[in-house]
Amino acid sequence: MTANQTAINTLIEQLRQQGFDEHQIKTDADSLGFWGKDWTKHFEPNASAIVFPKSTQQVQAIVKLCNALNIVITPSGGRTGLSAGAVAANGEVVISLDKMHQVLGFYPADRMVEVEAGIVTKALQDFAQQQGLYYPVDFASAGSSQLGGNIGTNAGGIKVIKYGMTRNWILGLTVVTGKGDILHLNKGMIKNATGYDLRHLFIGAEGTLGIVTEVQVKLERQPKNLTVMVLGVPEFTNIMQILSAFQSKMDLTAFEFFDDVAVDKLLATGHVQKPFETDAPFYALLEFEAPYEPIMDMAMQIFEDCMSEGWVLDGVMSQSIHQAQELWKLREYISETISVFTPYKNDISVLISRVPEFIADIDAIVSQNYPDFQVCWFGHIGDGNLHLNILKPENLSKDEFFEKCQVVNKHVFETVQKYNGSISAEHGVGMTKKPYLNYTRPDEEIDYLRAIKQVFDPNGIMNRGKIFD
Amino acid sequence: MTANQTAINTLIEQLRQQGFDEHQIKTDADSLGFWGKDWTKHFEPNASAIVFPKSTQQVQAIVKLCNALNIVITPSGGRTGLSAGAVAANGEVVISLDKMHQVLGFYPADRMVEVEAGIVTKALQDFAQQQGLYYPVDFASAGSSQLGGNIGTNAGGIKVIKYGMTRNWILGLTVVTGKGDILHLNKGMIKNATGYDLRHLFIGAEGTLGIVTEVQVKLERQPKNLTVMVLGVPEFTNIMQILSAFQSKMDLTAFEFFDDVAVDKLLATGHVQKPFETDAPFYALLEFEAPYEPIMDMAMQIFEDCMSEGWVLDGVMSQSIHQAQELWKLREYISETISVFTPYKNDISVLISRVPEFIADIDAIVSQNYPDFQVCWFGHIGDGNLHLNILKPENLSKDEFFEKCQVVNKHVFETVQKYNGSISAEHGVGMTKKPYLNYTRPDEEIDYLRAIKQVFDPNGIMNRGKIFD
Repeated sequence: MTANQTAINTLIEQLRQQGFDEHQIKTDADSLGFWGKDWTKHFEPNASAIVFPKSTQQVQAIVKLCNALNIVITPSGGRTGLSAGAVAANGEVVISLDKMHQVLGFYPADRMVEVEAGIVTKALQDFAQQQGLYYPVDFASAGSSQLGGNIGTNAGGIKVIKYGMTRNWILGLTVVTGKGDILHLNKGMIKNATGYDLRHLFIGAEGTLGIVTEVQVKLERQPKNLTVMVLGVPEFTNIMQILSAFQSKMDLTAFEFFDDVAVDKLLATGHVQKPFETDAPFYALLEFEAPYEPIMDMAMQIFEDCMSEGWVLDGVMSQSIHQAQELWKLREYISETISVFTPYKNDISVLISRVPEFIADIDAIVSQNYPDFQVCWFGHIGDGNLHLNILKPENLSKDEFFEKCQVVNKHVFETVQKYNGSISAEHGVGMTKKPYLNYTRPDEEIDYLRAIKQVFDPNGIMNRGKIFD
Repeated sequence: MTANQTAINTLIEQLRQQGFDEHQIKTDADSLGFWGKDWTKHFEPNASAIVFPKSTQQVQAIVKLCNALNIVITPSGGRTGLSAGAVAANGEVVISLDKMHQVLGFYPADRMVEVEAGIVTKALQDFAQQQGLYYPVDFASAGSSQLGGNIGTNAGGIKVIKYGMTRNWILGLTVVTGKGDILHLNKGMIKNATGYDLRHLFIGAEGTLGIVTEVQVKLERQPKNLTVMVLGVPEFTNIMQILSAFQSKMDLTAFEFFDDVAVDKLLATGHVQKPFETDAPFYALLEFEAPYEPIMDMAMQIFEDCMSEGWVLDGVMSQSIHQAQELWKLREYISETISVFTPYKNDISVLISRVPEFIADIDAIVSQNYPDFQVCWFGHIGDGNLHLNILKPENLSKDEFFEKCQVVNKHVFETVQKYNGSISAEHGVGMTKKPYLNYTRPDEEIDYLRAIKQVFDPNGIMNRGKIFD
């Protein structure tokens, strides 16, 4: 028996003595495989045990024991991450928040809800809806991801242009630090100027400083008559001109883009209808609230101006909620559709103003080095976040393809660095992007990150090996 | 000559050798007094020298020398602070950002401006205005305060209900840490999930971790047809009902309250007109954008509903920008008006839902202990931020009055603690509230703050003695 296995056995024994029941500790192979990994596929799961605490106090008990026994912890939410931030690959004990998903309190005057961090994002959205309110952070994995995980990566998604990142909606956090202390950070207040805001340090920390157990979330009024436009665009630079034209006069709730490669694949599935007859190399999808007739008129006017300028080839505007939902499918179904082409995916960001140059540079790099690779772009242009997808040619094996993509990777990140951009816009660093972190943050900055981790987690037991070594 | 004076002389000599000219170093008594203090009056300034760097590199040079010479630094902006965060009371060298106020770049597609941290808040607002955009953080001292200081306390002000705190508008920071490293934090990106966001650690740190030298600021579209309503309200709880009634249907840009004590003093100055004939014990001022007729109609409808419910005694709505400005004076002139009564001021916050109970508790404490003290309340009800002002009775000397207020202080902060609130909503801790910090943040949390300071400022030279000892 390894030293780690002995420690794990002691941990389990002591947790049982402290009242953890049989459903709260799993060590069977299926469970270790299931809870030991996230949506990434590059790392083999190798967890030692999965523990399901039911309270902040139970999380604290586990963390304290793991410190004493030198056991490394992988905090775990909905495991929908794409950077291997929640993979237990090295004998870790997984702390799953699956049994901590209650709504603890609702404060109508504050438009605030208090929840356990294991609540599924969609369940939080639904709760808000039931109260006549709105939780605006939304993305493809909302049906499985947990709020604690969203906080760990400061999740963004499709409504950031209006509502910002997860960070904007977090009024308070209860955390158990790597040392095992329980901290109640900011306690739900909007204004609180009493020293360093540790809440914001835990948001985006990917579980490396401690575990978020309870959250105070701000809610918003529901959007009114959300209306969607899809536009066919001749040149990529026109997309930026369209964004600017609309944004100078209206509040957009989304501004997405995708290219004809994505649309061709989508139409081939038969699940989505062509938005209009005209073919276009690029598409913009924009959304706005239109509770009053003059807003609709203004949108039409801007659309016509864009047509006159030659920035738009054709377009369509939703006339009902149903039509709006249909148009959204053009964007929402892309990821799933291209997944059959085993895409090499990258989630990167630069300043909005630098997007056209940046895309041109990356396109040139890929077509120069790999003329037979097809590139599919989509993303959140309204916030500078691009999803680069290189599709595997049929004649290449998966291994050969990924090997070549590793070479592309280096070029992509060098270009990100040249443009002062980010190697991870919203997916986090985890293990997948750890080797590339210094393309976005210089080594001396990473030294500060290490020192901060030391403050909260002196034994380095909390999600060790994620973000940095 | 003291050891400190010898060190200061060495510092000045070395700075001159490094090219600092005569206008960049001041040691005359007038300058030491002027730049050595902020708007608080409780601490005597006692600076050793004032240095005016012109670049991030010059700030770094000073910080490195001060580390070597064991000289303590007080970072200094517009010195409008109300918590003695920028007072040099113990022989510190003041680093003033007065000569670093340039606009460095403007990025229209990103709606972002890059500035030096010494820019005056009003100058930033004006620059945005000239570009057809808007910087929404606004408060009484905007004409003198500097952006770097706003960041140090995460300034809030009167538009937080819609636009949030200073934090929301900061896309990137260049800082010189207490150790003397230059860090470029977040580089202007909206989405960037690459490890701990140190930018948010520096926001609200009151210059105790380092000095912010350059800032990337997000701007917003200009508000359209801002319209103001002032309502007379019979009971404080009605204010909360009015807030809820409006907020459920409209987006408010401000929701302020003040009491009849404030209004009586205002009217007595003759500078402000009575908003309507009816007298009321409480007043609400609310503001919203009304670009379309139906929004105006909706506001009138909600107003009438509130009248029918008995929540409103009387009210007025602005019909022009001029009228809106006139109505704002009712709120904006309060601070200046009551300053002649030598008020004991406190800036505190609690959850919005707890405001009525909290105010009642504080009122009871004051009237029970000091029946001859007059209390004047005003504040930003829309975000739970209250300004408590106790007015000095004429028959009491200033010293006697402040002595009694110190006793009240303790009761106030105990009440804040009971309600899980904050002892400083937007003014920061500085030296004034340092003794009371643990009413909001428990000692074990403060230990983490101390450890973080140690990471960025191991010699403790950066604004020593502020926030905590």
